[in-house]
Amino acid sequence: MSIKVLKFGGSSVKNIGRIEHVADVIAGYKPDPVVVVVSAMGDTTDHLLNLARQCSTAPDQRELDLLLSTGEQVSIVLLSLILKAKGLSAKSLTGQQAGISTTDEHGSARILDIDAEQIRKELEQHDVVVVAGFQGVTESGQITTLGRGGSDTTAVALAAALGASECDIYTDVDGVFTADPNSIKEAIPLKEIGYAQCVTLARNGAQVIHPRAVELGEQYDVVVRVRNTFNPSNPGTEIKGESEVERVKQFCGVAVDANQGSILIKKLKQANNLLREVTECLNECGALVDNIKQVNSSDSAFYGSLQICFQYKDRERAESAISLLNQENPYVSICADLDLCKVTLVGSDAQGNAKASIRAIGILEESGIEVKSIRTSDLAISCLVNKVDAQIAARLIHEAFQLSADFGATKTEELSLIA
Amino acid sequence: MSIKVLKFGGSSVKNIGRIEHVADVIAGYKPDPVVVVVSAMGDTTDHLLNLARQCSTAPDQRELDLLLSTGEQVSIVLLSLILKAKGLSAKSLTGQQAGISTTDEHGSARILDIDAEQIRKELEQHDVVVVAGFQGVTESGQITTLGRGGSDTTAVALAAALGASECDIYTDVDGVFTADPNSIKEAIPLKEIGYAQCVTLARNGAQVIHPRAVELGEQYDVVVRVRNTFNPSNPGTEIKGESEVERVKQFCGVAVDANQGSILIKKLKQANNLLREVTECLNECGALVDNIKQVNSSDSAFYGSLQICFQYKDRERAESAISLLNQENPYVSICADLDLCKVTLVGSDAQGNAKASIRAIGILEESGIEVKSIRTSDLAISCLVNKVDAQIAARLIHEAFQLSADFGATKTEELSLIA
Repeated sequence: MSIKVLKFGGSSVKNIGRIEHVADVIAGYKPDPVVVVVSAMGDTTDHLLNLARQCSTAPDQRELDLLLSTGEQVSIVLLSLILKAKGLSAKSLTGQQAGISTTDEHGSARILDIDAEQIRKELEQHDVVVVAGFQGVTESGQITTLGRGGSDTTAVALAAALGASECDIYTDVDGVFTADPNSIKEAIPLKEIGYAQCVTLARNGAQVIHPRAVELGEQYDVVVRVRNTFNPSNPGTEIKGESEVERVKQFCGVAVDANQGSILIKKLKQANNLLREVTECLNECGALVDNIKQVNSSDSAFYGSLQICFQYKDRERAESAISLLNQENPYVSICADLDLCKVTLVGSDAQGNAKASIRAIGILEESGIEVKSIRTSDLAISCLVNKVDAQIAARLIHEAFQLSADFGATKTEELSLIA
Repeated sequence: MSIKVLKFGGSSVKNIGRIEHVADVIAGYKPDPVVVVVSAMGDTTDHLLNLARQCSTAPDQRELDLLLSTGEQVSIVLLSLILKAKGLSAKSLTGQQAGISTTDEHGSARILDIDAEQIRKELEQHDVVVVAGFQGVTESGQITTLGRGGSDTTAVALAAALGASECDIYTDVDGVFTADPNSIKEAIPLKEIGYAQCVTLARNGAQVIHPRAVELGEQYDVVVRVRNTFNPSNPGTEIKGESEVERVKQFCGVAVDANQGSILIKKLKQANNLLREVTECLNECGALVDNIKQVNSSDSAFYGSLQICFQYKDRERAESAISLLNQENPYVSICADLDLCKVTLVGSDAQGNAKASIRAIGILEESGIEVKSIRTSDLAISCLVNKVDAQIAARLIHEAFQLSADFGATKTEELSLIA
C-alpha cells in the first residue's frame, strides 16, 4: 500500500453536499492510506479578503495570512467530520500541525520543509489525514499563506515529502485542456503533458493548476494528475516527464493571459540611455518590467523603437511613469497600450521552429488581428494582441495548429508539415 | 503606565461597524499599553456549530475545537486591521501565539499557563495586542477551546499573568444587574459585587460573565469590571473582594436557571436502597445528579420521599432512567418534573438567615406559586418552581427583598428587618 496524496479545490468543497461527494471519492482510494489537501470552501477567501478591505485600505499582509488561513481550517474540519460519519478514521491538521514550515514572505511564502514523520505517524492511526492547503508557519510561529493556488503546491510538496509517486489534483474540469474550455468549445483534455509544457501553459494564463506545484512535481519526480471531482472515473491528465504524446504532437495547448500592458517608445536617438531611464522610472513607480524589446534602425528619420511590457495590474503605476517620462523627454513619442492580451502557443522546441512563429503571425494577420509583438522561447510562441482580439486569436491558433486532434504516432510526418 | 486588559464579547464585535466602535473605545485607553481579548463575531460560533452538525450527528470535540477557534481568529485580525487604520500600532495573536497552554479536555479545556513574556515583548513594539479569546493549545499542539464564555476567562487569566490589577469585560449591558434586565425592568446595575456573590449569580443562571473568570479574578486578586461597550462612560460594576455595598445590603441579586428537572419518588419503604438504585440508574443513563433531597417519615402510609434534581439537558436520559425504574419498582410512585426553573436569591450569609428563606417561600406561596423545593447555601437561597412561574417568582423576590433599592450605610437596620 502506497500513500496517496489528493487535493480538492474550493469549488469541490463549495458546500456540505459537495464535501459529502468529495468524501465518497476519497473512500474510493481505500485501503491505501490517503493524505487529502483541501482549499477553503467556494468563495470563502474572497469573502474574507472583502471583510479585510472593509477594515483597511491597505491590510497588513501578516494579518491577512492569519485571516485567510481560517478558510482552510474550516474546510479540513468539515471534511474530517464527514469522513468520520462515513465510517473512515480521519484527522484534520492545519498547516502548522502538519509541520509545513515556510519562509516569512507573507502572502507568497515558500515551503521550506514538511514534517513527514508527523504525518506518517497520523497515518498509522487514521485512514485519512486531511491537511489545510495554502498555509504554513514560520520558524517564529507566524501563520503564512503560499499565495493563490497554493493548495496545489501544498499537495505536491506533501507527495514529495512522503515519497508518494503520484499526486491527484481534483478540480472541476476533466484535466489540462488544449485551451480554456469555457471560451473554446473545441478544446479537449490532454491525456498527458510534460512538466515544462504545463508550467508554460500555467504561467501564460491557463488556470487549471498552479505552476509552482508542477515545478515541484518535476523537481521531486512526482506524477501530478489533474482530475475532475465530478467525473472521478475519468483518468484526467498526467503531468510528468517526457511524454509519449509530445514526441508526436509538437504543440499541446494555447493559453491567454489578459494581464498585459506595454509601453512603446518611437524615434529613439539615444536608445540605450532611454532604456535605462524608462526601466528605472517604471521601477520607481513600482511597475514590474516583464519583457523589453528594442529595435534599432539605420534610418535617420526612425532611429528605432523600444517596447516594454508590464503586468496589467501595474497599469496605474506605468501610466504615472509614462507621464513623467513624457515631461522629461519631449523629443520622443512615448505611448502605452494598456489593454493587451498575450496569446501563447505552447509546445516543445517552439523557438527552434521559425515556421510556426511565422505561421502564427500569418494566421492572425489574415484575420485582421494586429500582432503587437511576438516572442518565442524554448516552449512557447507568445503573441501580444489587443484584448478584444484575444479569444478569436486563441481560437484561430487552436484550430490552425490542430490542437484538438488526437494524433496517433503515425501522423508525425503530417504534423511536422503543419508546424 | 500599567497594562490594561480588556475583553469585548461577540455582540460588541458583531459587524465591521461595531468593531470600529470597539477600536475607538480601545483608543481611549492610550497611552497605557492594552491587551484586548475578543470573542468571535456575533453568532459565528453558532453558525460554525451548525455547519459541523450538518456534517456529523456527533461531531468529534477535537475537530470542533479546531473549527470554532477560527471564529476568534477572524475577529482578532479585523480588529487589528481597524486599529492600525486608526493609527494605533496593533498585532493580533491566536491563543497559541499568545502562549496560552491548556489541558487537553477539548471543549472545556482549562488554562495551565500563559507566556506573559511573549505578550510583554509584543507590547514593547505595539500599542495594542489583540488576543483570541476562548482558545488555547495543548502541549502536543492541539487547538482547544475553553467552553462557552471562555473569552472572559482568557481575559482575566491574561490580566493575572501580566500582573494587571484590573480587567475590563465589555458587554452589551451596563454591568452586573440585580436581575436579568431583559425580564425584570426594575433591575439595576450594581456598583460593585463580591467575587463569591458574582460567581453564585453566574452559576445560577446570570449570563453577564462567566463564573470561572470571576473565580480567577478572586484567585489572582484582579478587580474585574463589567462595562457596556455602547455606553463606555458608565463605570459599570466592579467585581472584587469584600465590598462596601455588601456590608450594608445583604442580598445583591436574583438569578433564574431554566436548566432544571427533578425526579420525585414517593412512598419509599426502603429509601436508602432506592436512592442508590435511582442515582446509579441515572448515572448509567448519563444524567448528572445535581442535588438529592430525602425526607423520611414515621407515617406508615407515607414512608418518605426522595427528590433528585438533574440538569434539563439530561431530560431524555432521565426519562429513560425513570421508565426503567418504574418497571423495576412497581411498589413506589416515581414521577418527574421536567420543566422546572431554579430561582436563586444571592447574598451574604444566606444560609444563616432562616428568616429570609421562610420569607421567600411565603412570598411565592402567597402568589400561588408552588415551591417544589428550597435549598440554601452560604450565599444563596434557591427555590425550584415550575418553568411558567419562574419570571414572576424572580420579580416577586426582587421586589420583596428590595434589590433595586440603592441603600446607603444608614439603612442597615431597616435592611436586616426586611431580611
